[in-house]
Amino acid sequence: MTSATDELTALTVAEAAARIGARKLSALELTEAYLARIERLNPTINAFVSVTAERALADARRATDEIARAGSRGPLHGIPLALKDLFETAGIRTTGGGKFFADHVPRADSTVARRLREAGSVLLGKLNTHEFAYGVTTDNPHFGTTRNPWDTSRIPGGSSGGSGAAVAASLAATTLGTDTGGSIRIPASLCGATGLKPTYGRVSKAGVFPLSFLFDHPGPIADSAEDAAIVLEAIAGYDPADATTVRTPVERYREGLVRGLKGLRVGVPRRYFYDRLDGEVAGAVETALGLLRTLGAEVRDVEVPSSEGAVLGLFGLILAEAQHIHADRLARRPQDFGKDVLAILSNPAPTTAAVVAALAEARQLTAAMRDALESVDALATPTTPVTAVKIGQETVRYGGAEEPAIFTMIRCTAPFNATHLPALSLPCGFTREGLPVGLQLVGRPFDESTILAAGHAYQQATDWHRRRPRL
Amino acid sequence: MTSATDELTALTVAEAAARIGARKLSALELTEAYLARIERLNPTINAFVSVTAERALADARRATDEIARAGSRGPLHGIPLALKDLFETAGIRTTGGGKFFADHVPRADSTVARRLREAGSVLLGKLNTHEFAYGVTTDNPHFGTTRNPWDTSRIPGGSSGGSGAAVAASLAATTLGTDTGGSIRIPASLCGATGLKPTYGRVSKAGVFPLSFLFDHPGPIADSAEDAAIVLEAIAGYDPADATTVRTPVERYREGLVRGLKGLRVGVPRRYFYDRLDGEVAGAVETALGLLRTLGAEVRDVEVPSSEGAVLGLFGLILAEAQHIHADRLARRPQDFGKDVLAILSNPAPTTAAVVAALAEARQLTAAMRDALESVDALATPTTPVTAVKIGQETVRYGGAEEPAIFTMIRCTAPFNATHLPALSLPCGFTREGLPVGLQLVGRPFDESTILAAGHAYQQATDWHRRRPRL
Repeated sequence: MTSATDELTALTVAEAAARIGARKLSALELTEAYLARIERLNPTINAFVSVTAERALADARRATDEIARAGSRGPLHGIPLALKDLFETAGIRTTGGGKFFADHVPRADSTVARRLREAGSVLLGKLNTHEFAYGVTTDNPHFGTTRNPWDTSRIPGGSSGGSGAAVAASLAATTLGTDTGGSIRIPASLCGATGLKPTYGRVSKAGVFPLSFLFDHPGPIADSAEDAAIVLEAIAGYDPADATTVRTPVERYREGLVRGLKGLRVGVPRRYFYDRLDGEVAGAVETALGLLRTLGAEVRDVEVPSSEGAVLGLFGLILAEAQHIHADRLARRPQDFGKDVLAILSNPAPTTAAVVAALAEARQLTAAMRDALESVDALATPTTPVTAVKIGQETVRYGGAEEPAIFTMIRCTAPFNATHLPALSLPCGFTREGLPVGLQLVGRPFDESTILAAGHAYQQATDWHRRRPRL
Repeated sequence: MTSATDELTALTVAEAAARIGARKLSALELTEAYLARIERLNPTINAFVSVTAERALADARRATDEIARAGSRGPLHGIPLALKDLFETAGIRTTGGGKFFADHVPRADSTVARRLREAGSVLLGKLNTHEFAYGVTTDNPHFGTTRNPWDTSRIPGGSSGGSGAAVAASLAATTLGTDTGGSIRIPASLCGATGLKPTYGRVSKAGVFPLSFLFDHPGPIADSAEDAAIVLEAIAGYDPADATTVRTPVERYREGLVRGLKGLRVGVPRRYFYDRLDGEVAGAVETALGLLRTLGAEVRDVEVPSSEGAVLGLFGLILAEAQHIHADRLARRPQDFGKDVLAILSNPAPTTAAVVAALAEARQLTAAMRDALESVDALATPTTPVTAVKIGQETVRYGGAEEPAIFTMIRCTAPFNATHLPALSLPCGFTREGLPVGLQLVGRPFDESTILAAGHAYQQATDWHRRRPRL
């Protein structure tokens, strides 16, 4: 565990980049360290569905040469990372987690894969996801079960479970996931990683297999808020190929981290988000709120209406879009879907009236959240009301009732898909069983800077994000 | 016609503001001139459904005093304007063009009405619209027929027909309309005014009676691109109460007008937009393209896919949203709708699959348009394929076929509702019958500046926008 290899893979992107920039570490050494660790641990964790070792080594050699010759191009130059298998990658199999695409090799990169490549990063491979990103608790029926590095009998969360597990197990320096109801923040929360769902439109979805165009958000799952800032800066920005991206200027997120927490007004929306929580989660989150206050934030309760209706509406809209996206496959080869996704897709579509009402409900919640964010700079909630459940566990009992685990997991995250607001999940403690707890910070539209700076200040004062499982 | 009063009402906002700022003209004199003209001409034109003369005079006196004492606050200080009756105005009846709201007096201003008030403008009254903004050619069954000032046997276009007619007849220094399929640009085109549909999200819709949240855009109908720039600068910007507004910085649109046309790359999307045109419209538009070239623009054909499917999809989405918005009224008091809107609303809703497919089609067209706008700075098309039709005329024959007039009118405008791109309509000539022809310039998302500057340069070199009907 404390071999030289494991010391390298424990570095954050920021730390590794500093060493690479100072020529104390080469991209090749670092890539070899990750590949060795993947070889050792992936058979247990199953975070990767494709490991592109040869290409990674070739890219790492080129990066090493370039940096030796001309210096580092930036903080991702020579950094080994991995992408959820929803991001198209030129010449590398991209399955979307589905049997239909088990042999699909795209000719072009998704916009963000291209931007990461142009930043000089090294692609280690592609990460497991729920089938077509549909689901947050179930296994992938075609590419196997990804396990939570903190307890391999538990789920890593989803749909970006491979990304969360890869970060927690130090199998990649950083990763990308996608988030439609919480699929970046839930694995971040359950795996003790830092996950950022940027504002809708901040990051291009061109070349990313869709679950729901209305609510999909690509973003980083990383070791720290600082690493998330580095990745966001590389991938953010207008893309003509994605009609939902906007021309709002991309900020220098990493430089902005120095803004810290001093004087930040943090609102605590007690209703709904704190109604039903596991006791240990509640305790860790309250402790975190106390620490934010100690660090100079002004923490106070704020009123927002319940997200209940908007979240139900979101489920319907995602279903309607997914049924559209998969219509041909459903009609022609239903047997090639896994049973869970087939069952979901076989549900009756919501009516047109329900679709329109759900859109209206999402808009109303958005206006209410934005209004709350006029009097505070950010909101703080738990990311997930409970910690990682057992693999195969279908329901959760907490706060005095039992419900399907999927509802529990997305309870606090999905409102920010409906409202498109940026949301960051940070590790904020561990249960007695040793499972990570997540704190969610939510910002104004396109104000990722504020929540990243708050998260960074919090992480400067704590070491929850530094803890890694023994593997 | 050449009385002192008519000389004042012929001024653009920019010109009137210059005189007011130099204290050569008072807000009160100007307001009295407009009220006198309204009294004389509105019985014929029927642009106004409510004239708020007393309040306007009080506001004008206050503005006159303020300016005498402390100088002008800006280009709208003391300027008499009018709003489509979809914009809620505190203490002033706001009907939405519907019988249901014939006595509805809002307690609060819509965000843009408030912003215009805060800019010091004087509200003359509220302007006629198609019932709930649904329709572009039919009359309003409750508030009467608005007539085109160029030929009172013809429609002014819609749904912001009152706004277009008020500008053309010089019954207000400037106006606001809303545009869901073309309802700002069509009346601008048919009435010889300058209309700007800003980018979706650029201007708040809070307090504006909705037709379709997905595609509604408030914006100015004005005497010139310069006046549209002045109004846009006052009303644009983020509004927490409207979930669709974005934090993209508001530019100094008026200062930006000096950028002109030199070197501007203007794309001409021949397919679809130029397929079927009235001969005189085609001639005027080609002449305008030639002048753009003479003025220094680089005008070239560009390829974009046909908008046919997206426009059909847009019709379905608007219907689905309108049915949702009016559901209670339809169920309880269908007889209070006019027959045209009742007939539309009684159509079967599109299916959920059709709704989702239409959203996808809109996104695809958006990506294609944005892609075209990577190689050019703006697109140029006709605004309407034909000029104003007769009141009551239900079909149009042009380009070798006959179709419902509504389809003809929205043919070139609706694609930019589907794609949310900013689009400006400018007068670019007159037919032998003396009816105005409109040229449409389309910009990149949130790049209203470029099309306003192009329009301004065009208007510096022509006087189409200065022509006014004899009334």
